Amino acid sequence: VARQDARDRPLRLGVLGCGNVGAKFVELVDTEAEAIARRTGIELAVTRIAVRDPDKARPSSLDPASLSKRLTTDAAAVVTDPEVDLVVELIGGIEPAEELVLQALGAGKPVVSGNKELLASSGGELLAAAEAAGVDLLFEASVAGAIPLVRLLTESLAGERIVRLMGIVNGTTNYMLTRMSEEGLSYEEALAEAQALGYAEADPTADVEGFDAAAKAAILAGIAFDADVVASDVYREGITAIGPDDIAFAHRLGYEVKLLAVAERSVDQASEASETGRSGPPSVSVRVHPAMVPRDHPLASVRGSFNAVFLDGAAAGELMVYGRGAGGLPTASAVLGDVIDAAHHLREGSRSRSARRRAPDLRPMAVLRAQYYLSVDVADRPGVLAAVASVFGENDVSIRSMEQIGLAGEARLVFLTHTALEADMQATIAGLGRLEAVERVGCMLRVLGPEAGP
Amino acid sequence: VARQDARDRPLRLGVLGCGNVGAKFVELVDTEAEAIARRTGIELAVTRIAVRDPDKARPSSLDPASLSKRLTTDAAAVVTDPEVDLVVELIGGIEPAEELVLQALGAGKPVVSGNKELLASSGGELLAAAEAAGVDLLFEASVAGAIPLVRLLTESLAGERIVRLMGIVNGTTNYMLTRMSEEGLSYEEALAEAQALGYAEADPTADVEGFDAAAKAAILAGIAFDADVVASDVYREGITAIGPDDIAFAHRLGYEVKLLAVAERSVDQASEASETGRSGPPSVSVRVHPAMVPRDHPLASVRGSFNAVFLDGAAAGELMVYGRGAGGLPTASAVLGDVIDAAHHLREGSRSRSARRRAPDLRPMAVLRAQYYLSVDVADRPGVLAAVASVFGENDVSIRSMEQIGLAGEARLVFLTHTALEADMQATIAGLGRLEAVERVGCMLRVLGPEAGP
Repeated sequence: VARQDARDRPLRLGVLGCGNVGAKFVELVDTEAEAIARRTGIELAVTRIAVRDPDKARPSSLDPASLSKRLTTDAAAVVTDPEVDLVVELIGGIEPAEELVLQALGAGKPVVSGNKELLASSGGELLAAAEAAGVDLLFEASVAGAIPLVRLLTESLAGERIVRLMGIVNGTTNYMLTRMSEEGLSYEEALAEAQALGYAEADPTADVEGFDAAAKAAILAGIAFDADVVASDVYREGITAIGPDDIAFAHRLGYEVKLLAVAERSVDQASEASETGRSGPPSVSVRVHPAMVPRDHPLASVRGSFNAVFLDGAAAGELMVYGRGAGGLPTASAVLGDVIDAAHHLREGSRSRSARRRAPDLRPMAVLRAQYYLSVDVADRPGVLAAVASVFGENDVSIRSMEQIGLAGEARLVFLTHTALEADMQATIAGLGRLEAVERVGCMLRVLGPEAGP
Repeated sequence: VARQDARDRPLRLGVLGCGNVGAKFVELVDTEAEAIARRTGIELAVTRIAVRDPDKARPSSLDPASLSKRLTTDAAAVVTDPEVDLVVELIGGIEPAEELVLQALGAGKPVVSGNKELLASSGGELLAAAEAAGVDLLFEASVAGAIPLVRLLTESLAGERIVRLMGIVNGTTNYMLTRMSEEGLSYEEALAEAQALGYAEADPTADVEGFDAAAKAAILAGIAFDADVVASDVYREGITAIGPDDIAFAHRLGYEVKLLAVAERSVDQASEASETGRSGPPSVSVRVHPAMVPRDHPLASVRGSFNAVFLDGAAAGELMVYGRGAGGLPTASAVLGDVIDAAHHLREGSRSRSARRRAPDLRPMAVLRAQYYLSVDVADRPGVLAAVASVFGENDVSIRSMEQIGLAGEARLVFLTHTALEADMQATIAGLGRLEAVERVGCMLRVLGPEAGP
């Protein structure tokens, strides 16, 4: 009966949270509802909005009278309200968001969420709950803002064996690295600028240490490989050790330095016949770390606060999507796309396809193979280079090139290795740390090789 | 009853055409069906394949025995066969493809098509026929191969007001322009190379004169603006007049030369409130022409035979998708994504949303405003520059910069204008052609201004 009714009146949206994204979403629906109805035949109306503090100032573009009629502080009541057809969760964080989403699904209501933390911690369970309830749980806005990655992976590439996915998914760090690359700023200067512009928080840890990117990597790996990957599964290094010298060296060799979120199938599964590759648990590596990206790779030209994800499909080949990875309005646009999709499904009594997720076989970093860049500050005296070089050799890491940058009283050595095993490289770093002549092992970067891109 | 059955047995696909894309599609379904079923719960099987010549050699990776059992020369019988659930049209061209697609839709069968010519000539009618039949007509593979543009525009951006869309949608010309830009090849050398590599046909007209890009522009404009745009509505210029001097001049000013397909809403409709903008017929400009693209624009770094489409949404902001725009396997991957979508809908008894298309209000080129680059070969004698410059002035086109390139006995003048009206620029070109001292009006390029990108 409810589904019949839905054709005659607007679909009633209950929105949880009216912050940056929530306010823009309400505004977008208020102003575009008529145009959307004309285009898609789907009428939408935001009828209830749950907020923590109803007296907080909202964006002036929202009519205060029309807004206050819809506001409530009782989020649970919005979720269970029989006059709410679909729940839009834009609170962020795990609790109370998780409980509310489960309640909504349990009540048979489709949910659209933009909550990265939630999806990265319990996406598998939530999707299972949605499947059990026979309704949609859509979450395009939880990764990379307006960039339609989730739909790309779940629908356009539904038949595709994804081999590898590499993304610039944190706008703050990409802004900082762009400024360091283009203007020669130090890490500290770039951070101060990003904070002044509002790109970075006063405590920038989530961005610069890669936690934000790791949560997004977990969500993307989950979709790309139908695997139940959570944020804590993701190996993670941030950008705090990167300095102007490292970027200058990368430039001289034709590279840009980018913080990459990488999810890849293990080599065996990527190349073998699909039967073999898919019958066991998906064997994947999911990691976030800075990398040297060849300048003619499409990811190298992603500048400023933009995001992009580059992926490699067995049949589709190389694909990249690029756009605004954050911001209230772009993210609200992604939420709206999901809402229209869910509304269409609700009206048709159907739902989105959902893949069956399995526990992944997570490959440890130690077995990764890559080329490495490493900077080492040493005392500037005879014999030091030989001692340093022998540590590489003892650990089976072969040096491709070395450069010495003179400093007062000491020297910085920068190395580029041939392809080596991560475990051997880590042993090399540990061994260097034990050398008396080594003042500091500085920045380590993995180098994107030709096998990983054009 | 048929829909109930579909849950118990594979969905039976009738494929029309087994050329480059068709053969790869059959191969993909044959090898990936098991993995797709495991992932999506949807079982697919290609049961019939209509070809013109059953004795023609097919790719060796297709098992000949398994293939020959499915081949037929009677395409109409495949379409009406009650044992075919879904029709995949990969014949290309208008007839007999159009008739077959209409027959399939009339028989209540969803159709997936990769046919650019067909969609660009009668997409509106075919979509209406699909809507009347209550089944899907999906055509992701008809534009830009593996790049998921159609789904991006129809689903992810369903609630979005698209302001402008600019694409590199022809791999052949982008390959040629990349070689001219990076290696200094002449147009003729670049064409010969593209032909040797199989990127360009012996008769390259469809690519180099922009016909292929114009068909794709029509399809994209149709989806982006819910407008019934056909290929012949698209203003079109090719790349045949572009020479190394033009590209060298563009480089000196920080530009790359690209053949762009552009579809944009008129300025009034892009900026006004959506109510005003959408209630009248959509006022759009759809055109294909070479352009000077600033080097830091994401489209400038699209190299070789890759395709990309950059778009500007009122809420989503700037987005770009990049990938393989052609090739059997990438295109087959796009077809497969559509087939899985249509199969899911068929099983659920639902269908894709379809927008209501309207006749567009096509803006004539004459009212376009842009900056222009123009090269003019003149006799090298006193007074000629003044005569040439006065033609610009008489037509209200203001010159921003001019450069003279000496040639034996004559000279090439290259001009960059301030923003001018296209009609005035065309009058300038006509006026220059009438000057006795002008040997030849060479290449004209529109310059992508800052208002059209980052």
